[in-house]
Order: sequence, then C-alpha cells, then structure tokens
Amino acid sequence: MLTKQEYIDAREKTLELLNNAGIVLSDLEQQEIEVADFGLEQLETQGLQLITYINNDHYCAKELVLFPHQTCPEHKHPPIGEVAGKTETFRCRLGKVFLYIEGSTSATINASIPESSKEYYTVFHEVELNPGDQFTIPPNTLHWFQAGEEGAIVSEFSTTSRDEFDIFTDPTIHRIPVVEE
Amino acid sequence: MLTKQEYIDAREKTLELLNNAGIVLSDLEQQEIEVADFGLEQLETQGLQLITYINNDHYCAKELVLFPHQTCPEHKHPPIGEVAGKTETFRCRLGKVFLYIEGSTSATINASIPESSKEYYTVFHEVELNPGDQFTIPPNTLHWFQAGEEGAIVSEFSTTSRDEFDIFTDPTIHRIPVVEE
Repeated sequence: MLTKQEYIDAREKTLELLNNAGIVLSDLEQQEIEVADFGLEQLETQGLQLITYINNDHYCAKELVLFPHQTCPEHKHPPIGEVAGKTETFRCRLGKVFLYIEGSTSATINASIPESSKEYYTVFHEVELNPGDQFTIPPNTLHWFQAGEEGAIVSEFSTTSRDEFDIFTDPTIHRIPVVEE
Repeated sequence: MLTKQEYIDAREKTLELLNNAGIVLSDLEQQEIEVADFGLEQLETQGLQLITYINNDHYCAKELVLFPHQTCPEHKHPPIGEVAGKTETFRCRLGKVFLYIEGSTSATINASIPESSKEYYTVFHEVELNPGDQFTIPPNTLHWFQAGEEGAIVSEFSTTSRDEFDIFTDPTIHRIPVVEE
C-alpha cells in the first residue's frame, strides 16, 4: 500500500513533469491523479502515474507520466467476453520511453530490467519513443515500458480501458492502486 | 481552392501555435497538416487546421489548431448505416475556445458570428473552454466553435473519424480540402 505521503509526493512530481510539458489539468484532475505502485512497494522502480481524461464505451484518452527510469511492468489486455482486448496508441510528448513488445528480441536493450522482478520481463522487442513518435500496441499483446533519465510523458489513445482485467506477468501484482486513508 | 502559398503560410502558423504549446510533431506529420477552408475561401475567418495522430476502426485522436478568432463552421456527425455518428471529446490545450452546441441559447454569446454566413449558424448554447477544460459532444448534434484572440489548440479524442460524411448547415461547404497543385 502507498502511504499518504508517498502518494502526495508522487502527485507533486507528476504535476512538475506535466508542467514541463505545458500540459494543464483541471483542479479535479490534479486531485485525482492515479499513482500505481502495482502493490510492489517500489514506486520509483516499478510504477506509473495516470490521468484519465475520458473513458467511455468507445474510446479512452489518458496521460501516462513516468519518473526517470520508472518502469510499467509487463502486461497485456485480454479479450473480455466477446469484446477484443484494448488496442492502445502511445504517443511520446516529453522525455524518452523504451517500449518492449512481443516480437524478435532486439540486439540492444536500453532499459535496465528491475532486478527483483527479472523473471517477469519476457518480451524484448524494443521501440524507442521520443517526442512526436508513436506506436500502436495490438490487443492481447505483452508489453512493458521504461522512461529514460528525464522521465517521460506519454499520451495514450485507446479503446475502452478496463484496467482491472489487465494480465500481468508477475502474479503478485495488483493493478488497482491502494492508498493509505 | 487554397493556393499553395496560402497552404504554406497556414502550415507555418499552425507549427508556431503547436510550438507555443510544447506539442511536437514528426517530420511526416508536419508535412501532412490538413488546412481546411471548407471551400469558402476565407480561411482566416472560417477554417481549421488539423493533425490526425491515429484514426482506426475504433478510435481517433487529432489536434485541432485555430488561428485567432477563426471559426469551424456549424456541422454534425450523422449515423453512417448502422454505426452511430461520431462522439467527440474536445480538450483545450492552449488559448480559448467558444464552443456552441444544441440546447438553450446562452444569455451572452462571446463569439462573433461570421457575417457572410450568418444564416448558417443556428445553435447558441455556449461552452467556454480554457486549457484543462473539456467537453464531450454527442453524435448527430449540431456544433460550431471559434477561438479567442490568441487562437487555440484543442485535442480531439473520438470514435472513428469519417469527415466526408459530416453534414454542414451551410450547403455550399466542401469539407475535404483542396489545395492548388
């Protein structure tokens, strides 16, 4: 569980990165920034901050904010009943992101795989995203991503987001964040 | 038809506004900026600049760029066969936008209605969008919008975009831009 103070600190750092990118949030959005430590209690290493602008029955738009070298652990978006898994387009706005997806392992891997969770990183086809670059991840495809040394902001455009159905390679992960009351 | 020079000038001004907002485009996106004068040949008054990041069978994401006081004429997104019309979320990133939709006429109208096309503006429920504000327009709903004095950038998140089916109140409008070769 994140302590209240960890949550407040992470929110401050998130607002700072957004400010660097010239991205403005409403007061309510600032209060509702999602800080996901995936239940691993090592937010700086494996974690992600999210702002959801809209998530309806058709489409979803978010900003993903990553601190320097922070990693979003490997996962996929499976089909839910007869609905295909989430398709998502990542567009880098600030900083640099190394995205890894299923496919041929790249000759060079620029990210550092989080040591304590090494066995839960299994796909190594690298896509480097700098501001103005984007990549669309098909449904039900394993992927993970890590920010470069300045952190990163990624706009995500996608089909409807139902994060509670995400499948993480690390079975100890809980996607939905819990913050101390 | 837009002359080649008008297109080049509009593209330059668009890149300048995007730059002010810290929004980076790829080289290809910079080349492919869409400049829509709607066939009215008064781009500064009635026109719109667009960058489409992604438009697939499920979702679409664009940046809309408006010059100072530029107006996107009144239109709606009708159903196409059995598919509902486009739903779109406008999120203001820079500047100010006055959006008008179906509903009760607002007591004060901040936009100036383009004089030569006055009869083709018929909905006057005003929504003011400043950076960080957003509004979702339901399918098949008449709307038009005008930038404030500094121009505006609006991120549009939506269902699939099929602009050629848009219905404009002004019957002389051609949505798909034509630029001199």
